[in-house]
Amino acid sequence: MSGQIGVTGLATMGANLARNLARHGHQVVVHNRTAAKTDALLEAHGDEGDFVRADSPQELVDKLEQPRTVVIMVAAGDPTDAVISEIAPLLAEGDVLVDGGNARYTDTIRRTEELGGRGVHFVGCGISGGEEGALNGPSIMPGGSAEAYAIVGPVLEDISAHVDGEPCCTHVGTDGAGHFVKMVHNGIEYADMQLIAEAYDLLRQGLGLSPAEIGDVFATWNEGDLQSYLIEITAEVLRHTDGKTGKPFVDVVLDEAEQKGTGRWTVQSALDLGTPVSGIAEAVFARALSGHVDQRKAAQKVLPGPGRDWDDQVADRDGFVESVRQALYAAKVVAYSQGFDQIARGAEANGWDVDRAALAAIWRDGCIIRAAFLDRVRQVFTDEPDLTTLLTNEYFRDAVADAQEGWRQVVAGAARHGVPAPGFASALAYYDGLRAERSPAALIQGLRDRFGSHTYRRVDAEGSFHTMWSEDRREVSA
Amino acid sequence: MSGQIGVTGLATMGANLARNLARHGHQVVVHNRTAAKTDALLEAHGDEGDFVRADSPQELVDKLEQPRTVVIMVAAGDPTDAVISEIAPLLAEGDVLVDGGNARYTDTIRRTEELGGRGVHFVGCGISGGEEGALNGPSIMPGGSAEAYAIVGPVLEDISAHVDGEPCCTHVGTDGAGHFVKMVHNGIEYADMQLIAEAYDLLRQGLGLSPAEIGDVFATWNEGDLQSYLIEITAEVLRHTDGKTGKPFVDVVLDEAEQKGTGRWTVQSALDLGTPVSGIAEAVFARALSGHVDQRKAAQKVLPGPGRDWDDQVADRDGFVESVRQALYAAKVVAYSQGFDQIARGAEANGWDVDRAALAAIWRDGCIIRAAFLDRVRQVFTDEPDLTTLLTNEYFRDAVADAQEGWRQVVAGAARHGVPAPGFASALAYYDGLRAERSPAALIQGLRDRFGSHTYRRVDAEGSFHTMWSEDRREVSA
Repeated sequence: MSGQIGVTGLATMGANLARNLARHGHQVVVHNRTAAKTDALLEAHGDEGDFVRADSPQELVDKLEQPRTVVIMVAAGDPTDAVISEIAPLLAEGDVLVDGGNARYTDTIRRTEELGGRGVHFVGCGISGGEEGALNGPSIMPGGSAEAYAIVGPVLEDISAHVDGEPCCTHVGTDGAGHFVKMVHNGIEYADMQLIAEAYDLLRQGLGLSPAEIGDVFATWNEGDLQSYLIEITAEVLRHTDGKTGKPFVDVVLDEAEQKGTGRWTVQSALDLGTPVSGIAEAVFARALSGHVDQRKAAQKVLPGPGRDWDDQVADRDGFVESVRQALYAAKVVAYSQGFDQIARGAEANGWDVDRAALAAIWRDGCIIRAAFLDRVRQVFTDEPDLTTLLTNEYFRDAVADAQEGWRQVVAGAARHGVPAPGFASALAYYDGLRAERSPAALIQGLRDRFGSHTYRRVDAEGSFHTMWSEDRREVSA
Repeated sequence: MSGQIGVTGLATMGANLARNLARHGHQVVVHNRTAAKTDALLEAHGDEGDFVRADSPQELVDKLEQPRTVVIMVAAGDPTDAVISEIAPLLAEGDVLVDGGNARYTDTIRRTEELGGRGVHFVGCGISGGEEGALNGPSIMPGGSAEAYAIVGPVLEDISAHVDGEPCCTHVGTDGAGHFVKMVHNGIEYADMQLIAEAYDLLRQGLGLSPAEIGDVFATWNEGDLQSYLIEITAEVLRHTDGKTGKPFVDVVLDEAEQKGTGRWTVQSALDLGTPVSGIAEAVFARALSGHVDQRKAAQKVLPGPGRDWDDQVADRDGFVESVRQALYAAKVVAYSQGFDQIARGAEANGWDVDRAALAAIWRDGCIIRAAFLDRVRQVFTDEPDLTTLLTNEYFRDAVADAQEGWRQVVAGAARHGVPAPGFASALAYYDGLRAERSPAALIQGLRDRFGSHTYRRVDAEGSFHTMWSEDRREVSA
């Protein structure tokens, strides 16, 4: 199949997506606000396929046949609104406008409403895989109407990554569903990277291994249950030596992690939905903490640690490595479980019919969190589409049960030895909170009734109650 | 001093605030949308002071002398906007409208702007202390202009709680500052209660103590560094026996914690400000988790724990109790430190001149988190107004250092024995992250550059850099 499509915004992601389209035999009308980027693309890669140059939004629209499809590849926020307001008035009823940026899903819902009034289909479309993915096959998460997907879906599926012939692209749901799911994908990515960073830190501090040696450990892990793109490139980055100093690359990189917002949005949305995504939150906060240089400098000088060695672990190097692997695996399952919970709740709250199995399937390749693991997740949600939490599925329950001893030892060891492991610890606390017979939340409810008459429910009766704390402590119905 | 003031909204908080005003010799013009609540107030408490009844907004305004002060005590959100839109048009230039509800501070900023156009002073005013505080002296956090504070401040100071003759009321800052600070106060309250709940859970599971026995432990703690209202009422609630069943009260309360939104808002705001408030986030998420009944039911049946006893701790009961006390104290210092960080960042971002020492001072009494501890915090911020984090102050540094061994043992023990302690663990990870010489955030930056060309900075050179990972791995300036 081949068709015709327009792309506006030719920075790296947009240029690579345009090339991907052209390489798949689609005629691509390319446009950029400043002509220099268009020139550069056509000069370097014009021979890769059928590119048509457009030097204005009007030309972009004029050169496309109806129904037109225009993909916007510009920065999220105001720049996206600016481009929409330029192009949308030029489109006709039935045309499709695709936003391939990292838009906030609430913006996508708003834009869908605004454009729906003109009969233009708006497709908020999550695209993951970075520059390489955009060029060679990303994981694509389009939202919007079924009608719009019928027009644009086949082209997107065509240029997406594929696993066993299946495209890593599926119609996620209406309006903001695609960008919502892409947001949670990024949140999971934050958690995944934080856990990897903790594993590295523990191996280094617990065993005194060099970054390159730890890279070797990750390379080995990449052959087992943990096999994934992030583990693979962790091995690569840890093994890399800085050309200028001859030191391990990771040691010359400033240890202040940056962020672009999707992790933060994920947690903010999860708070509104009442979904505990503690793994993602700890990852976002760990990045924030790393960037608070003044506080860190002040604290490094004066805050004492436990002053304790890791002697016992060093005695059993392989055992410690295996414990860290178990911690990484188990905490990762928790992070994904929390992320899929958020997707289920978000779908419920917004009226989207999201198929978690289909999502796991399209994340198996093309995107940053691509992993063998997701094939298993797909299987689980295929077998149990109404599963209430990934953790109770038999396979993952057993896998986490097998890993829990190492996980517990690592969290305990990190606490005793002063190595920060917020992701591992938080995931374990979530696991133990989930399976607890009784939660001390009962005490919190009691306190809330005591100081604020917020009332409580009882385990043995329907209704809400209040204790007259300042009087005779009799209980009244509330 | 005495004056004249109007109160609209006579539910429990509003009625109690009106009574507090009347008892202090102020003439209070009271109004409620439905007359029944006004009748009830005047019938039960009309003899407590000089109440003037108003049966309509117009009457409320007419019965006040200029400049008028009207306090709105209704639910946050739309109900507050509805009352403002009824009353504001009746006010004259120079009048003061006080919102004493739990408004979102961004709403307060918006309302201040809207009303400023009419020359009406708007004072978004945080009030903490629950029903009893409203009646007997709350902690009051008014925002708004200095001009407005000159009018309304003396009355608010008059009815607030007092410590050594100092009122628990201070002009926090302009527009939304008061409600912002009240929001963070509530976030800290969430963290505080979560830590208390974890301490209770650990004492119960670790030592097999009864709720009443644990109440005795809390009562003892209330005589030391932990002395606070929340510890005091924890002892009371834990010692309370249910009248219907004869069981410990805390065992008949349903273990699903509810929330009204300010904890969630605090974390959402902290994410925007880039301030890690992991203690508050874990508290909000723990409440959310407790309410996910379907997931908990499914997990209770099938998720295995570590299958390990607490034998070693039981052997040293007093030692274990002391370790839990240390964990509670240290984690509490972290939670407060994070909360005060958020206030500093929020003030910076919004152009408020917030005095952290003054805040600590007005939280010493009247509010839910009132505690001896806050006198120390006040002292610290008085001595070091530019302190970058509470944790590096000498007093708190030493106090946490003294507590860290027990704290670490408790986090490690909870992990090994399967008791969820997200608050203790998260606070410890934050402490260790803050003092770490090197953060594994360097690896995260390396990964981000590897998969997304996000660039990184170096420890030994200015500027941003990118490694050509897919080519010859040379480094280029970005």
